[in-house]
Amino acid sequence: VVVAPGGENVVICSGFAHGVEVLSRALRAAGASTVAVEEYGHPGHRDIITRQGLGAPLLPLDGRGACVGAAGEADAVVLTPAHQFPLGMTLAPDRRRSFAEWDGIVIEDDYDGEFRYDRQPVGAMQALAPDRVIYAGTASKTLAPGLRLAWLVVPPSLLDGVTACLSGGPSALDQLTLAEFVTSGAYDRQIRRARLAYRHRRDRLISALDPIGLRVGGIAAGLHVVVDLPAVADEHRAVARAEQRGLALSGLSWYDLARSGARAGLVIGYARPPEHAYTTAIARLCAVLGS
Amino acid sequence: VVVAPGGENVVICSGFAHGVEVLSRALRAAGASTVAVEEYGHPGHRDIITRQGLGAPLLPLDGRGACVGAAGEADAVVLTPAHQFPLGMTLAPDRRRSFAEWDGIVIEDDYDGEFRYDRQPVGAMQALAPDRVIYAGTASKTLAPGLRLAWLVVPPSLLDGVTACLSGGPSALDQLTLAEFVTSGAYDRQIRRARLAYRHRRDRLISALDPIGLRVGGIAAGLHVVVDLPAVADEHRAVARAEQRGLALSGLSWYDLARSGARAGLVIGYARPPEHAYTTAIARLCAVLGS
Repeated sequence: VVVAPGGENVVICSGFAHGVEVLSRALRAAGASTVAVEEYGHPGHRDIITRQGLGAPLLPLDGRGACVGAAGEADAVVLTPAHQFPLGMTLAPDRRRSFAEWDGIVIEDDYDGEFRYDRQPVGAMQALAPDRVIYAGTASKTLAPGLRLAWLVVPPSLLDGVTACLSGGPSALDQLTLAEFVTSGAYDRQIRRARLAYRHRRDRLISALDPIGLRVGGIAAGLHVVVDLPAVADEHRAVARAEQRGLALSGLSWYDLARSGARAGLVIGYARPPEHAYTTAIARLCAVLGS
Repeated sequence: VVVAPGGENVVICSGFAHGVEVLSRALRAAGASTVAVEEYGHPGHRDIITRQGLGAPLLPLDGRGACVGAAGEADAVVLTPAHQFPLGMTLAPDRRRSFAEWDGIVIEDDYDGEFRYDRQPVGAMQALAPDRVIYAGTASKTLAPGLRLAWLVVPPSLLDGVTACLSGGPSALDQLTLAEFVTSGAYDRQIRRARLAYRHRRDRLISALDPIGLRVGGIAAGLHVVVDLPAVADEHRAVARAEQRGLALSGLSWYDLARSGARAGLVIGYARPPEHAYTTAIARLCAVLGS
């Protein structure tokens, strides 16, 4: 446990998934039985929750994010308030407030909070209710996922329970290196540099997709956009065609935890191709989507 | 999962304790209800097992180690066959064979297998029964505990269950660095250098303790010796007196999981003091034990 300059208790864990596991165990040990998740999200994160013996009901999403009314009797919720993953909307201010005033625990997954482009930064929900919101950040997007470095800001009342469930965790050398990187200011410089680079990539992607006439969403932040398609069959066809051309795309249906089929589309990450391959990747993507 | 040159499946985890946790969960998910441990050992490791909802009955130890007869109905056992921790005996050959022929799972904790001094290396039990022995090794003693790098050789039948329970795990950079260190031969050179240095430290410690006339055991391997004392009260007194002189010693009773009080003594690690402080540390220890 590291105590931040503001007095917050920060628990370092081996990536966000490890954090979800530790929190799930801690909540279960504290008597929780359900942790609700947004209806679109990483299936792997929901699996981690259910593997700990917790129920994981789904929170419906509309253009303003999830709604606390749907959380019902859940003991906790996992939210991506700043940039819903994968759909990309921001949780509306009144809904943020409702969750902050709710009496359950909120796990705030700020997976890409460093990458905001066209709008004012969205403050962390954790600041609204520091006694009941657990903030989760990660170096997976700012540095590299392979580092397995993430952090949880944990309310004092949950701290002992969380640390009791913590095993594993990153190398002390990696933790000290990150601490030095942060305190020296180099981490902030890296984020600013990366933000510019990713914004440029995003702009190039959107410009290239524009003539095709598809709806592109979730573009104000993050490292991916969502392209809507008319039907799930179109989505499957596009994913298969992309694969033939060496592009790894995932369809929205992969993240559709309710298996509702309500939306069809592609989740297009633009962070991963190496710089020299980005032009080719965009050209191939347009060929897949324009044909 | 890394496949070793011999075809073994190696799972990398964040230190041995993380490995015990992952294995406990995997065994529990596979229907196990008890994992027996040696009656002297790390209380923390046993806690990890019981926190997963498993029983952890104790295996009695005599001068030849643990006995399979005592494992009874346990689904698995954790053993330190090459150098019992902390008592220091080697599991007798006939007992090794009995455990290897047993129908439960053996978790072979080879925590200090690289540091053998006065006798032939003891082969891994895993080689005797690769389908039922899980071998656990660690870089905590050969490099540094803070690296959180350990490995499990997992029988094919258990592999899917173990990887399903694996979350967290070390940074890819750390894993690749260790792999390069191993394949380049530098890791072997480091072990040989460390073995010589630790053997020298052990010899100096034993020579210094000799005139005091205490029984010193478990010296053929590892990074610690056990000094027997007449009674638990002597042990507590010695630990307290050592602490006053800036020496961190642990008493055998800390590792006495049965709280039997059957033995009293000190577990004296000699790996930790920096080289320049070792002479002083030995002098202080002799002052504590000789007074």
